[in-house]
Formats: sequence, C-alpha cells, structure tokens
Amino acid sequence: MIIILRADATPQQVQHILETVVEWGVQPHVSRGVERTIIGLIGPEDILRTKPLEAFPGVERVMPVLKPYKRASLDFRREPSVIRIGAGPHPVELGGQRIVMMAGPCSVESRDGFLAAADAVRDAGATMLRGGAFKPRSSPYSFQGMGEEGLLILAEARERTGLPVVTEVMDTKEVDLVGRYADMLQIGARNMQNYALLREVGRTHLPVLLKRGMSATVKEWLMAAEYVLNEGNESVALCERGIRTFETYTRNTLDLSAVAALRRETHLPVVVDPSHGTGIAEMVPSMARAAVAAGADGIMVEVHPCPEKALSDGEQSIVPAAFQALVEECRALAGAIGRGL
Amino acid sequence: MIIILRADATPQQVQHILETVVEWGVQPHVSRGVERTIIGLIGPEDILRTKPLEAFPGVERVMPVLKPYKRASLDFRREPSVIRIGAGPHPVELGGQRIVMMAGPCSVESRDGFLAAADAVRDAGATMLRGGAFKPRSSPYSFQGMGEEGLLILAEARERTGLPVVTEVMDTKEVDLVGRYADMLQIGARNMQNYALLREVGRTHLPVLLKRGMSATVKEWLMAAEYVLNEGNESVALCERGIRTFETYTRNTLDLSAVAALRRETHLPVVVDPSHGTGIAEMVPSMARAAVAAGADGIMVEVHPCPEKALSDGEQSIVPAAFQALVEECRALAGAIGRGL
Amino acid sequence: MIIILRADATPQQVQHILETVVEWGVQPHVSRGVERTIIGLIGPEDILRTKPLEAFPGVERVMPVLKPYKRASLDFRREPSVIRIGAGPHPVELGGQRIVMMAGPCSVESRDGFLAAADAVRDAGATMLRGGAFKPRSSPYSFQGMGEEGLLILAEARERTGLPVVTEVMDTKEVDLVGRYADMLQIGARNMQNYALLREVGRTHLPVLLKRGMSATVKEWLMAAEYVLNEGNESVALCERGIRTFETYTRNTLDLSAVAALRRETHLPVVVDPSHGTGIAEMVPSMARAAVAAGADGIMVEVHPCPEKALSDGEQSIVPAAFQALVEECRALAGAIGRGL
Amino acid sequence: MIIILRADATPQQVQHILETVVEWGVQPHVSRGVERTIIGLIGPEDILRTKPLEAFPGVERVMPVLKPYKRASLDFRREPSVIRIGAGPHPVELGGQRIVMMAGPCSVESRDGFLAAADAVRDAGATMLRGGAFKPRSSPYSFQGMGEEGLLILAEARERTGLPVVTEVMDTKEVDLVGRYADMLQIGARNMQNYALLREVGRTHLPVLLKRGMSATVKEWLMAAEYVLNEGNESVALCERGIRTFETYTRNTLDLSAVAALRRETHLPVVVDPSHGTGIAEMVPSMARAAVAAGADGIMVEVHPCPEKALSDGEQSIVPAAFQALVEECRALAGAIGRGL
Repeated sequence: MIIILRADATPQQVQHILETVVEWGVQPHVSRGVERTIIGLIGPEDILRTKPLEAFPGVERVMPVLKPYKRASLDFRREPSVIRIGAGPHPVELGGQRIVMMAGPCSVESRDGFLAAADAVRDAGATMLRGGAFKPRSSPYSFQGMGEEGLLILAEARERTGLPVVTEVMDTKEVDLVGRYADMLQIGARNMQNYALLREVGRTHLPVLLKRGMSATVKEWLMAAEYVLNEGNESVALCERGIRTFETYTRNTLDLSAVAALRRETHLPVVVDPSHGTGIAEMVPSMARAAVAAGADGIMVEVHPCPEKALSDGEQSIVPAAFQALVEECRALAGAIGRGL
Repeated sequence: MIIILRADATPQQVQHILETVVEWGVQPHVSRGVERTIIGLIGPEDILRTKPLEAFPGVERVMPVLKPYKRASLDFRREPSVIRIGAGPHPVELGGQRIVMMAGPCSVESRDGFLAAADAVRDAGATMLRGGAFKPRSSPYSFQGMGEEGLLILAEARERTGLPVVTEVMDTKEVDLVGRYADMLQIGARNMQNYALLREVGRTHLPVLLKRGMSATVKEWLMAAEYVLNEGNESVALCERGIRTFETYTRNTLDLSAVAALRRETHLPVVVDPSHGTGIAEMVPSMARAAVAAGADGIMVEVHPCPEKALSDGEQSIVPAAFQALVEECRALAGAIGRGL
Repeated sequence: MIIILRADATPQQVQHILETVVEWGVQPHVSRGVERTIIGLIGPEDILRTKPLEAFPGVERVMPVLKPYKRASLDFRREPSVIRIGAGPHPVELGGQRIVMMAGPCSVESRDGFLAAADAVRDAGATMLRGGAFKPRSSPYSFQGMGEEGLLILAEARERTGLPVVTEVMDTKEVDLVGRYADMLQIGARNMQNYALLREVGRTHLPVLLKRGMSATVKEWLMAAEYVLNEGNESVALCERGIRTFETYTRNTLDLSAVAALRRETHLPVVVDPSHGTGIAEMVPSMARAAVAAGADGIMVEVHPCPEKALSDGEQSIVPAAFQALVEECRALAGAIGRGL
Repeated sequence: MIIILRADATPQQVQHILETVVEWGVQPHVSRGVERTIIGLIGPEDILRTKPLEAFPGVERVMPVLKPYKRASLDFRREPSVIRIGAGPHPVELGGQRIVMMAGPCSVESRDGFLAAADAVRDAGATMLRGGAFKPRSSPYSFQGMGEEGLLILAEARERTGLPVVTEVMDTKEVDLVGRYADMLQIGARNMQNYALLREVGRTHLPVLLKRGMSATVKEWLMAAEYVLNEGNESVALCERGIRTFETYTRNTLDLSAVAALRRETHLPVVVDPSHGTGIAEMVPSMARAAVAAGADGIMVEVHPCPEKALSDGEQSIVPAAFQALVEECRALAGAIGRGL
C-alpha cells in the first residue's frame, strides 16, 4: 500500500500516520520528494485494505499494490481451471480445449415446448441446456417463471437429451431446491453482489455460473467469485453478458475485451452470452463468433422454437435453425484457433 | 403500444401481426405512411408489454405509450406520500414540509462507540439514526457487520436517543430478524433488483428505504419500488446514492437531477445520500446542501466520531462537528425554499 | 511516479528499467516486498509522464504521484481566480461573491426576437447574455446558426442591455471573427478536446467559458483548460453541462459534484448549465437552485420567449417569467450561504 | 413522428398542436385511447425533427418514426460500399471481400524509425500504413507530433513500401496540407463532432476514416458521417476504437457489437482499432481476432519496433513479430468465415 501525502501535510500528521501503522504491525518507508512525501507500507495488504487510510488528515491518496482477489487470481493457480459439469459418466468440461455451447429458451414455459426446444438445440449441436424456472423480471406484473414445476421439466429434459442443465437461483431460500435439479447454478447479473446468495451457493458442491453485474468492473466481478471460492466451492465460471453504457442501440454493451482481461487475471473459465449482451436476435451470431475468436470457453445462447410466442426475451432469441448455423460457424472459427466444440 | 414496421415488411407479415393482436383482444389501428407503416395498439398495455412484439418478422421497433409503473406513479396518487417512521407517539414524517436528517456511522462497530455516535448526531440535529449491522462488502475478507448483536445496539441507541433507526437487510432469511429491531428497512444499492427480497420486505409493515442500484435508470428504480408496493406495503422512500459513470474522481456520480425527475413521476418521498454519492468526506456538505435545494425530503449522512478508526467507509464519513455545521447550513437553505428541518 | 513490477519480473528486467530511468536523469528507489517489487522515481514527473513505462517488460502498473495540471491547480494559485468579463467600466466578475446569471435563447434566430429576449432576461435579473450564432448540431440538416449576422445582433443586444455577451466559437478559422463581437468565448462540449481551437482562444485576450466534454473526466477537463492557460490566457471558467451516462430520462446527467470536485482542485471559477444538464425545461429551476447551493459561481440558463417556436433546444428552454422566479429563488439560496446575485 | 400527450392535456392544448402542425404542412392523425391521446404526424419528418414538439404544453413525449441519417443508411444504398484508397494502379479496397490490415506506430517520431517500422509492418502483412504527424494529446506538455515534417516522412514511407497511408487531421486549417500527403484522412475520436472539420474533409476527394467519439452513440456516429457524405464525399469508413464506460481495467471498452449494429444500419465499411480499444498491448491480438470474426472490414493496429521508446501510446503498441503472428491468426479466421486478408 502506498500513501501519497498532501503537499501541505504537517510533520505531526505524518508522525500520526507512522505511529498508527506501526501499531498495526506494518513497517512504513518514507520517501520525501520535492513536491510530495510518500509512505510505502510493507506488510499484510489484507489488513491495510480494511483500514480507512484516506480518512487520516494529511493524506491525499492511497494506492494499493496488490490485487484484492486471491483464490481467483493467477497467483493462486497459474493453470486454467477446468470445471466438470453433470453427474453422469460423461460430464461436460468447461475451460478445456473444447468450447461448450449452452442453449435453450430464456424460461421454461411449458413441458412440451421445453422438451421440443431441448431436442432441437441438442440436434443443432448444443452441449449444455439452459432455461429459467425462477426468472428475475424488472416488472412484478411480468411472467415470473414456473418455479419448481419448471425445475421438474428441466430435469426431464436432461434425462431425455443427456445434456447437463444450468438454471438460475435467485434467493438463498431456494438454493437447496434448485440444487436438487440443476447441474450448474446460475447467479444472474442482478444478484452478482448478493453476498448472502454467493455464500450459499459456495457451500454447495455444484458448479456456479456467475454472470457479470450490469455495472460491475472486472475486479468487482472477481471479488464476487472470491465469495463463492472462499466457501470452498472451486467450480466457478464467469459469464460476460453485457454491461450498461450510454449506448441504447443494444440492450447492453457486450464487453468482449473482458474475455482477454480475465485471461490475464484469473484461471477461471469464461463464458459469453451474446443474447443478453445485445438483446437483438439478428446480432447474436456475429457476437457469438467474436466471442469464440476472443477466446471464450463457452457460449450461452437463447434459442426458442417460436420467439414471437416466448414469454420472455423473445426479441433476442434465435430459432433452432439459426442456432445450428451459428454452431457450424463457431466450429470453423474454433478450428482456426486450435480449439473445437 | 406502437409498432413501427420495417420499410420492407410484407403484406403477409403485417397481416400476421394484425391477426395475432386481435387474438390477444387488442384493437389495432394501421397508418400507412410513405416510408413506414405504423400499427397503433389500443388495449391493455400490461398485456402487450409482456408480448415479444419485436420478435415478429417485419417489425422494426416497438414503442410503449404508457409508463410501466402504476402504484408508484403520479397517475395513481397525485399528492406526495408522507411516510411515518417510528413506533412511538412522535414518529418522524418523511415527505412532508420538514426535511429529515438521517445520520450515524456506516456500521455498528461496538456498543460504546455506537451509543456515543448516536448521542453526537442527535445533539448535532439528526432526526433519524442510521447504522449497519449486516454490511454488503465487496470483499469476503472485509468486516461483514456485527449481525444480531449490532441490531441490539441499534435498538438500545434508539431507546436512548428517541430517534427512529434505519438499517439494511440483505437477505430474505433475515427480514424477520432485522424487522424486529428496525424502524425502517434499507434495501441497499446492490440488492435493488433482488426481487425475492423486495417482495419479502413488501410483506412487512415497516417503511422501506430503497436505494438506487448503481446502474439503475429512474424507471427501473420505480419498478423495483413497484415490487414492494405491489405486496401491499405503501411506505417506500427512494434514496439516490450515486450512479456508476466513467468519472473516477468520486466514488459514484451523485445524480441530483433524479430528485427532480422523481418529482415528475412519483408521489414517493426522496432521500439523498451524499456520503456514498461522493465517497469523499470533504465533498459531503456541498452535496447535502445541493440536495436540499434540489428538493430532497431527507438527507442521509455517514458520521463517525473518528473516521480514521472506522471499520468501513471512513474516507467518506464526517465528524459530528462537521455534521452539525452541515445541519445548520441545510436549515438555512431549507428556510430559503419554504421548508424546515 | 511509482512502478509496480509483476510478481514474475526478472532481475534483468528490473535492471533494464533502472538503467533506463537513470539515463533520463531520474533517481530510482527500489523497495522489495514479499510479493512485489516497487520502484519509486524521484524526479521531474513531467518527463516521466511522457515515457511509456508500462511498455517495459516486467512492469505491472505505473502510478503517477503528482497531478498532471499545473496552471489550473491550487498548487499554482491558492486563491480563487476572479474573471472580469465585458469591456465597459462595470465588467461582470465571475468567481467573486456574486453569482453570475447568464441567460438567453439557445441560438440567435432573428433580430427582433433576440432583442426582445435580451430585454426580458435583463429585466428578469440576468447579469450576462448568452446566445449562439454558430451552432453545433448533430444533424447537417438542422438549423446551423445565423453566423456573422447573428454576431451583429448579439452586439446590438449588448449595447441595448448593457449585459456582456458569451457566445460559442467552433472553429479556429472563426476565432478572430467571433472575438470581435463577444465578451466571452464559449468552447462547446463537443470541442473540449479540440486542441487547435483551445490554443487559438488561448492566444486571445478574451475570457473563455470551457464546457465540459460529454465524457470528460474532471482531470481531462482541467487538462483542456491547461491548453488555454498555457498560451497565456488566464481567464478560463469551467462550465458543467451534464455528462453522458446510462440514464436516458434526462438528456445528460448533470454532475453537480463536479462543482465540489473542482473547488478541491482548481482556482478557476465554475459555472453550471442546468438547461443542457437536464434537457427538460421543467427540471431546470430545481437544478439551478441545487447548483447555487453546491457553490457554483455562475448559472447559465436557456430562456426563450416562446419555446415552442425555438429553432433549437426549445424543449429545455424556460420562459422569461419562469426565469424571473428562478432568479428570485437563487437569490434567496445565495443569501442563505453568504453570497448574492 | 408520434406525439404522446399527457393524461391531463386539455382540449385547447390538443387543438393548438393540431393547428400548428397543419400550418407546417403536416397531416395529423389523432387516436384517443382510454389513458392517453396520441397524435401521429404524417409528413416530411426532416421538418418535424427540427420542431421543438416537446416544448408544446400538454406534450408528454415525442417519438420519431424514421432514422435521422439518409445517405449513410441502408435505405439509401442497400449494397455495401467499397472504398478505394491510394492513388496508384493497385488501390486498396476497404469494404470488399479482403480485410484490410492497417498498421504502424502511433506517431511519426523520426525518419529512420518510421521507415524501419513501415518496412517491418509491410513484411508482416500490413496492407495500409498508419502514423500520426499531428497528434491530439490530453496534455499540452506532451509530444504533439512532427507536423509537416512528419507528413513528408509518411509520403516517403508510402513510396518505399507501396502501402497507402492514413493519417489524422485535427484542424480545418490543416486539411489542405495533410490532404497533399495522405491517402486517407483520419478524423480522431475527439473531433467526431467537430462539424467544421467534418464539412472540410467532406469537400476533399480523399477517403475519410471517421473514428467513433468516446461517448458517441451509433446514431450520432452515423450523423457525423452524414456531415461528410452531405458535402459530396462518399468515401467514409467508420472506425470503432472503444467507448468510455465505468470499466477502468482497459483504456476504453471496445464495442465490437457496433460492427454488427452498423451492418444493420449502413452500407459504409467498418474498421476496428483494438489498440486504442484496449490500451493494453497484450490484449490487442485477442481483440483483433474477435473483430475479424465479428465481420470488420479492416483492422487498425499500433505497431512499434520498440514500444518502450515510443513517444506516445507505447503501452498499447505491439512489436512487429507480434503483429505478424496476429496477421496469420486473422488470416485463418478470415478464411473460416469466407473472407481473406
């Protein structure tokens, strides 16, 4: 930690800071320049980080030296983590050489409809199934998901297709329930900093797909993953799904550079969701291709047999035939960079 | 709802849309211009809003006519709502002629410290007490609050000072517990779209202080309030606490225009938190003054007897003497616009 | 300047950096911690700032110690600068005890209309006149301003009302022309980083009103002012007019905390423009009041006798009667904080 | 244009609006719903767009039906535009089947250095040369470019390598000068809404590379292109170079979805600049690959033989060997989607 003092900091103020940090068990190093005095603090940065150094009189700015995340960082583990998803003998591996294609409708709306959609995406090349039983909707008057009934349908679709299932859990009270049916628990963007929920899924043995909050920095996102990892659950994947910017053309702004940024910071696998990332079905294939080329380990796409009848997110859902074409394009691109689907 | 068709929409596509909306029980009106055909839909906009009209072939854009919020809107109630906070014979009124000053440390850190702080802010002019027992922290390694022990201290401080207490609740599992001690339940910015939590506090009889999410639009914020109102709890106040922008000088960008925007849209009272809004103690008084002049019904300020010892948010906490000066300035400004503290 | 090395930086990389900075005439100080090595550079930060230190192998991050602005900074001049505007014997002072009220239509649209508007805003309490002869419009098909003819009308309005005139200059080729008529040159938000233009107005003797760019940080804004100051023109005022954020309710998000931030960083006067800041006439008075309470030295408001006939910005213009009420409110608030109009 | 009236709009207000639009030569259609009255205006939307309809009493909101851009739109020209760059017999084609690789140092710093860099990028596979002679720098104390001397070096490099040259022009006064040496004129992000400059380059016969402003929406960007097109210059390419968001990890947030968005809106070619888009050399290859997969027509990369000696943007420049690897990766990806380099 480095403390930059104000130009007008008094000797008493400097002395007070030095005495305080020594009390904390930290060794200060003072450098006096012509315009500013700087104090370098050598010691446990974890402790220092919790101290309100900027509240000390005479302090202009405080600059941390180390990154705040530990278990998520490349310092903790240099090799990419590979997450195994699915209880059967042939689990899907996320983070390995093969890119995982997750697909399905936004929400489970009916048994027949979902099973048909599941068959269609499997036939088109999906290797995992997605679908929401509990839906976070911005309006209390919108369809809120089928709840447990939806989970039963998800489980049936898994049996039928052999594809592992990822589905969202929105509340600590529902973690047990959802965990009985899902192969991977999704934490939605709106709950990325719902710390009680992060801790709760961290106590399960299920892989977690942590979507990026709408205005979360890469650092905050990794700190949210840290909450899960810190409870002992090492199977966390990060899903970029667009951030909120001034641009209104798209529903969100898909930040594909986050894929490259995460590669520099963490060993955890990275998934990209171009459906929420753009909000426009016509733009999904282009962004799925870009995600593969950027280095994503998985792609998550909303596919609906008849988007105009979807109860949620119809405008960003593609039809199975479009998904099949997208899978083929992604396969070709994956091959060009030494990976496969 | 207004549907703008693409320039190249076919007659079949138009026909398909018209037939579908008639099935929904909605009356369509077609206007054919030189460059675009437009379909106006007269009927229950609630139903239309849930339909994926943009997913229909031939549709370029869909524009809602009505606002999505109902109970929060001025159409529902034209007069400002006044919320009564506190169980005693002299509750605080939020939304009336007098501006409510909420103050206290970021978190309850110890019994003696908090009681001393509570006395200090009451003496300085606070009319409500704030303090966190459950703290949302971006790092799992930071102080997470004292939990129930903190709630007991809050209750003791209320008895001692006579000031009603507002404190945060972070999880559905803790609503009952926190509700037993608090006079007002705070929903933090990170949980603004935690819909399970919003519903749960909506089922209590306690007033709710709903902080704005870091990247929530005014419309989304009102929709979050709608979740609480829709459960039957009419006592919701909205708290502006800064939004996330590109500017890094301040911790957040305090959006004071939200005060004026909310006045145009809702009858609910509006509170401003300049402490989180700026993140810099030195800037808090200036922004508290501006909030009063902008028309806020309440001001929420972090005050700590010794910010450099605070376990959270020390850099943005002001000392009791500074708070007292701020109260006097706000009182003078309130007088200039026909209000009081 | 502080250099933080990567955990895996080699001794050769460290040595290479040390040798290079010594060549630049800078003295390095190496601190070796358990997890990171840090190099502090003592020497002319101006020079260091121009060096691509992050391009050196082994470097993780570089942190500047000093602020990049000089002439604009409080280190350069601790007392607030007061700018004199207007050639007559009674110039307006911006930055002093009295808050300057600048008002007028968005653009000069006709001689009679503008003179009537000028009379109206003077009668309502304006102390400066605003109006555009050269207009930056997002569409090439919109009204682009009256050009020199508009400048003549501005000059006539000044003679008639005695109020100094501020008007925008958009191109280096027009600085001489506009400078012959204006008392203060406005640099619009879109040109805040038009460095050729900044230098050109820096070479005049006219005061400059530098509007904040739509996505300019406070630091970048001060660096733009530095371009003007560096040419020898010391009369620069900064005008907050809203920044671009995700919020679409308002045209821009008025960042009133910039007023407090600038007070901590610079001696230059600060003006607030609530008209562009909100884009909604109904919200202008509330934000003008907040700006006064926040500590602004001037308020700039678009006033039009008949907004529905304005050729630009009608939706955010208020009528003279509303301006008069706003002036009275601001006067009362200014009095409450020890200032006047 | 569609006008939505307030719920409390009076018959007089409605009447006043109807009479006014009829005066403008526009035909209004009134639809009276239960909760809102709506007026549809059929007529020249260009004219309507310039009218301050929101300033009329009783109006709640105004919604345009048509897009504001004309010459840039797909309605104007459905086939992709192909721009020819370079005066020789073998011009580069931008917008065709082959993706154009533009590379070179950020700025021209010396004759020998630039010529060596030009040779290196040509050998590595570049098909156009980039380099700045006039540099927009956020500090007046930074290197500002070599000016005309730099242009001479650019011209020499073109002769030597046979590659056409793109370079920035920053001021209307310099358009003639720069135009004598350049094959393509670059308008930088900071000048995207410098309308005088846009008009001036629109009057030349040189192709224009229009970088996206830091906070420009896709729509505003196309309107800026419209300024150039409207002067008669049809050779405009759009360059995505990152937008400003809350994320500080990268210098900007590269908005690759803009590539797909522009494809839906315009016939103009699209270039992506991953160097400014990320600001981090290590992330450039990944984002260049993603841009190719997203469908970009050109990639613009900063390449410097020795980034640690660069006078500008060293931290985001890659070395020629890295560029060569990037070219090969892009070639493989281009092949996978049916294009070439």
